Amino acid sequence: MKKHYLLLLGTGLALAAHSQTLTPPARPTPPVAAATNADKAKVEALLKKMTLEEKIGQMTQLTLGVVADGKPGVEEATLDPAALQKAVQTYGVGSLLNVVNHAVTVDRWGQVITQIQDAAAKTRLKIPVIFGLDGIHGQTYTLDATLFPQNIGMAATRDSALAHAITKVAAAELRASGVRWNFAPVLDCGRQPLWSRFPETYGEDVFIGKTMGSTVIHAYEEDGLRNPTAVASCMKHFIGYAAARTGKDRTPIYLPEIELREYYLPQFRAAVKAGASTVMINSGEINGTPVHASKYLLTQVLRKELGFEGVVVTDWEDIIRLHTRHNVAPTPRAAVAMAINAGIDMSMVPMDYSFPDLLKEAVQKGEVPMSRIDDAVRRILTLKYKLGLFENAYPEAAARANFGKPEYQDLALQAAHEAMTLLKNQDNVLPLKKDTKVLVAGPGAQSISALNGCWSYTWQGKEEQWYPANSKTILQAITDKVGAGNVITTTVKGYDSDANYDTTALKNAAANAAVIVLCLGENAYAESPGNIQDLVLAPNQVALANAAAATGKPVVLVLSEGRPRFITSFEPKMKGILQAYWSGRKSAEAIADVLFGDYNPDGILPYSYPRSMGEMVLYDRKPTEEIREIFNSDMTMDGYKPLFPFGFGLSYTTFSYSPVTLSSTTLKGNDKLRISVTVTNNGSRDGKHTVELYSRDLYASITPNMQRLRGFQKIDLKAGESRTVTFILDKNDLAFVNADLKTVTEPGDFEVMIGGEKAKFSYSL
Amino acid sequence: MKKHYLLLLGTGLALAAHSQTLTPPARPTPPVAAATNADKAKVEALLKKMTLEEKIGQMTQLTLGVVADGKPGVEEATLDPAALQKAVQTYGVGSLLNVVNHAVTVDRWGQVITQIQDAAAKTRLKIPVIFGLDGIHGQTYTLDATLFPQNIGMAATRDSALAHAITKVAAAELRASGVRWNFAPVLDCGRQPLWSRFPETYGEDVFIGKTMGSTVIHAYEEDGLRNPTAVASCMKHFIGYAAARTGKDRTPIYLPEIELREYYLPQFRAAVKAGASTVMINSGEINGTPVHASKYLLTQVLRKELGFEGVVVTDWEDIIRLHTRHNVAPTPRAAVAMAINAGIDMSMVPMDYSFPDLLKEAVQKGEVPMSRIDDAVRRILTLKYKLGLFENAYPEAAARANFGKPEYQDLALQAAHEAMTLLKNQDNVLPLKKDTKVLVAGPGAQSISALNGCWSYTWQGKEEQWYPANSKTILQAITDKVGAGNVITTTVKGYDSDANYDTTALKNAAANAAVIVLCLGENAYAESPGNIQDLVLAPNQVALANAAAATGKPVVLVLSEGRPRFITSFEPKMKGILQAYWSGRKSAEAIADVLFGDYNPDGILPYSYPRSMGEMVLYDRKPTEEIREIFNSDMTMDGYKPLFPFGFGLSYTTFSYSPVTLSSTTLKGNDKLRISVTVTNNGSRDGKHTVELYSRDLYASITPNMQRLRGFQKIDLKAGESRTVTFILDKNDLAFVNADLKTVTEPGDFEVMIGGEKAKFSYSL
Repeated sequence: MKKHYLLLLGTGLALAAHSQTLTPPARPTPPVAAATNADKAKVEALLKKMTLEEKIGQMTQLTLGVVADGKPGVEEATLDPAALQKAVQTYGVGSLLNVVNHAVTVDRWGQVITQIQDAAAKTRLKIPVIFGLDGIHGQTYTLDATLFPQNIGMAATRDSALAHAITKVAAAELRASGVRWNFAPVLDCGRQPLWSRFPETYGEDVFIGKTMGSTVIHAYEEDGLRNPTAVASCMKHFIGYAAARTGKDRTPIYLPEIELREYYLPQFRAAVKAGASTVMINSGEINGTPVHASKYLLTQVLRKELGFEGVVVTDWEDIIRLHTRHNVAPTPRAAVAMAINAGIDMSMVPMDYSFPDLLKEAVQKGEVPMSRIDDAVRRILTLKYKLGLFENAYPEAAARANFGKPEYQDLALQAAHEAMTLLKNQDNVLPLKKDTKVLVAGPGAQSISALNGCWSYTWQGKEEQWYPANSKTILQAITDKVGAGNVITTTVKGYDSDANYDTTALKNAAANAAVIVLCLGENAYAESPGNIQDLVLAPNQVALANAAAATGKPVVLVLSEGRPRFITSFEPKMKGILQAYWSGRKSAEAIADVLFGDYNPDGILPYSYPRSMGEMVLYDRKPTEEIREIFNSDMTMDGYKPLFPFGFGLSYTTFSYSPVTLSSTTLKGNDKLRISVTVTNNGSRDGKHTVELYSRDLYASITPNMQRLRGFQKIDLKAGESRTVTFILDKNDLAFVNADLKTVTEPGDFEVMIGGEKAKFSYSL
Repeated sequence: MKKHYLLLLGTGLALAAHSQTLTPPARPTPPVAAATNADKAKVEALLKKMTLEEKIGQMTQLTLGVVADGKPGVEEATLDPAALQKAVQTYGVGSLLNVVNHAVTVDRWGQVITQIQDAAAKTRLKIPVIFGLDGIHGQTYTLDATLFPQNIGMAATRDSALAHAITKVAAAELRASGVRWNFAPVLDCGRQPLWSRFPETYGEDVFIGKTMGSTVIHAYEEDGLRNPTAVASCMKHFIGYAAARTGKDRTPIYLPEIELREYYLPQFRAAVKAGASTVMINSGEINGTPVHASKYLLTQVLRKELGFEGVVVTDWEDIIRLHTRHNVAPTPRAAVAMAINAGIDMSMVPMDYSFPDLLKEAVQKGEVPMSRIDDAVRRILTLKYKLGLFENAYPEAAARANFGKPEYQDLALQAAHEAMTLLKNQDNVLPLKKDTKVLVAGPGAQSISALNGCWSYTWQGKEEQWYPANSKTILQAITDKVGAGNVITTTVKGYDSDANYDTTALKNAAANAAVIVLCLGENAYAESPGNIQDLVLAPNQVALANAAAATGKPVVLVLSEGRPRFITSFEPKMKGILQAYWSGRKSAEAIADVLFGDYNPDGILPYSYPRSMGEMVLYDRKPTEEIREIFNSDMTMDGYKPLFPFGFGLSYTTFSYSPVTLSSTTLKGNDKLRISVTVTNNGSRDGKHTVELYSRDLYASITPNMQRLRGFQKIDLKAGESRTVTFILDKNDLAFVNADLKTVTEPGDFEVMIGGEKAKFSYSL
């Protein structure tokens, strides 16, 4: 049986046309409707009534802690009436964010939002407050909300329809909590694995980032923001944030503009086209200019070139830091003026009232023009109208009903399944038989936080008491599957100890086991606390891996980690390696399913798994990074040689590819080229499989990449089944940024590569 | 007794005004005279007579191997008459370079140069050949030539007068060998320690690079190139070569222009002012454009902005590689046209005749204008006239007499002494008493190549049979100093083995020792063969260090290495650490002198000795790299925390600093500011000491560096002696490159820091 699948690549938004999932395929809907004329008229009318103070209040965002009752023993997120009054009534603060310390119940959220909007209703103009927070892989801050894989895991699925589906759930559970603005998705391109926010990215490739990113923005907003299942999305973090040279969070970035435009801008361009309502700014500095102070990037590029019409919000405390940390503003007021003049609409102040006070001074002294204030407030009010806040700012019953539906758990499991990336399976050690005696060891074996990572019921995600009661560890999931009689464990209890793990206990426990499932990786972290000194896995983990190997029993390494930590020194001793990322609520179940063959893994790497510090070459390398200069026996080999390459992932079945066929060997002008390949499942198991299309420009005015991903399609093939997959390319899919910073496609020869098969064609004007 | 020393910083060329060395202080001579009018007239007359083929021949440089007799058993560098005729007579090749395989005697060089110039004398226009090679730390390719510390070690001396003195010797020994063009100095800024050519740099700081670099160019050329002690210098490698993102040699560089101008261009600007006759181009690509193809960098920046009037030569094979490796030229001829049109004067082809053939075609087809050819040839002929080659192209007796003078050895020892950088001396383990039983262990103990590094009698520097017979290993130097009865050793024999070192033998040998001197680091390497997978010292060396520490005997680690290799895991176990770099002919003697107290060390680090991959922050960090965000106990500390900071180095005596005094707390316009500090030797030993002046701009339009080196002076203080050191700054010393790429000094507050003392002043227009 052959089926024919088609992927339109030239449309700017490529979506997998295929799905056999629980969810409908993503629809290439038109961008979210701009504000209606009725909304626009209301905004202008309201703006005319506002005082300077009221306008500045709208531009001010405070963290919930400022208005919360911080007394010990008081229930979390209980608000202090006086503090709330000062914020919303005295200062007219237009936005609040975040929670106090940890997630609270959906009911508690209802009370909090109600209290806030009650306060807003008492103001002169009754402008509702917009509440925002970081729902990074589901609604972080509501207890029992459904958490899905982090973006890095979703990128491994290569399943845009799935990304769409989980985002709809995240939106529904946010809105159910009364929250209508989500600070997601992260569109930063993860090309620096040291960076602590790497797990929040879609990995190192531009195409995956712009495809997944714009799909997710559609999913948040496509039904219209008044709809009780929608929330406003926020493109993060404009721009280049992920590229900190040393890998430390919020530290200097050095990006030539040609590189910024080739690798970091396309995701935002696609996201603006997809209709994103808001954007958050990179907290770092690029080439010595903090992005929060860059009029070029915020106004020239974002507003004028990309045509973004939504709200520009800062990240945490980033205006005052222009003075206190970046040292580009000699005074706090200069910092405020610099940021607002650059193009900031709303300041996530968020801990005090310095911002409104200073901005008022700056306006009064003529340092910030009223036109810039009006422009900012107009955008903020427009967003509030679009969200229906002026009609009903309170928690909506219709939204509340969408919280915690049972099918979300199925979707969480599907997403975790598809993220699982099998990196090694020597001697077919996997799948394990269910009557195998397994030792389940390592600090990851009994950790829930290490399966979820950042932004999981707390910012850092480490406090396991806030996770849902039925969350499973790997040990529990395996025990539930194969029975306690087949499971051996040790007393290692998560990542909390700095001390060495007990290798003697491991050795003793292994004596009765046929296989060791060794669970290593990273416990949860978010932002700067995730900065690390080295990508090498911690020495106590390396020691444990060596001890496990020394038992002589086959070792299956399960990595749950936010970024690829080096395992090069002991990788040869591992029989099997499963990359689980931080895959959310159903991580443990998905891991157990793969280990014991109840799910045939289909995830593929969204990054090059690096070997060592000296081998940090990315898959889209330049030709001189491919060269292997061998002068003598002492020569260290050059070239692209990660431990596992980008796009790599094993299955329990095998897939073969026919030669690639092209509709023509020449592509002219704006014509389209059809590229087909037939994929066959040669094994005895059904399986999903991602077909990836890469292209290469043989010669170009800027050194061409050795390969660039131009399309992917995930198919599902029964054992023995074949399917022809077709991609359609046009010249825009082959373009690059030239020395004049223009995106161009130069005539000449190109090569396309699919699954080891290649074909050439030439392009002419 | 107080002395008063003065350093002029505003002159663009800062030289240490003080010297108690064997050598005269460097003189701030005017730039090397440009070509005389007489020379210019001769060049124009000759150019008029030349055919296109003859012109192209002048632009062609071949490696000596092309004209050498490659038959087995034939003495090295014996030329093949037919091959020589083809090159020099048929093709009119204007330049040759390099040697065949290894250094040869000075007499053999005389024969080779004579044969070549004899061939040139038989051509129609009798244009002599210019011979060039890489004398990187002395004359690499003449047997028994004097090798000095690599630039990284010279930077540690902070002694510009010494750099001047050793360069005069290198020039004399090159010229004595009949060679009048040296491919040195390397002016690349060593900010990427993974890079295999890091040892050839002056380290991470701009000021050291431009000070040492321009001093060295003066030393090569200041007496006029007709003088038999001078050679033409070559600025390497214009520009940004050292900044390969992944650290691999000749791989892509991504540099925003503001960074290129702030950190990489000033060295070349100073070198052009100092009168450098030639420049070699960066083999890499910057932002996707190979520098050999960059008309902007080669013509706009180098020629027009910097005003460089000398010869632009490619690096090895770099024109054809525009086609074969960078993929920016679709054909070989396009590669040639691209490079010549960009501004290349001479092609180091160097293995065949493709370049002249293709360039001729390109000119005939109008792809390269004759004006560009004439421009290139004019510069090449001018250089040959300036060098006196038209008067006498043969080896000069007056030059020959300057080879191998005994005092060069003293100078080599002085340079090695001043390079030695003592990084740790816990419990004053050093200096050792001469009756101490020392175990001298480790692969560096019996290696000569690991004390010299790249470009030492061979390209790679690893073949010890070509080193002078009286070269010493560390073991030999220690034995000579304290007698064989006090020295224990093991059978480890250099770095040649990949196998584990014998830790049992080490343990046994240590039983009878009071102290272990453990010699680790890097064996010699040059260019791409020096690419490494990790900066961590090789595992077999780490094991040896741990084994040495486990004996319980105090361990003194002697590092001889071209770049800082991570030693973080075992550093706490070392009692003493001496960084010896690759310090040339007298490295071993200098190491022994420091270990046993016959020399009081005074070298200081020219780089930040990094701790790990995640801690690669440089000393001139930005404010956000200084911040330490501590959220909770799991927070990895941020900030600048190398294992040993830039400028660090211990002495056997102690120096204290008075408070800093300023001539004024305000600096206006073009005024000068005098900054003084009194330094006292509080210890009981005499010692040299480098006083370093740093400054910091408190607020600026581009995030200001936390510190920038603005001056250094090396002084020599007897025990108990004090001396006042004065620096003079003007606004140019405080300048930075702004967002418009202009070098500016903005009004505002500044801080100067000397030896832990600080003072503030403000600058106004």
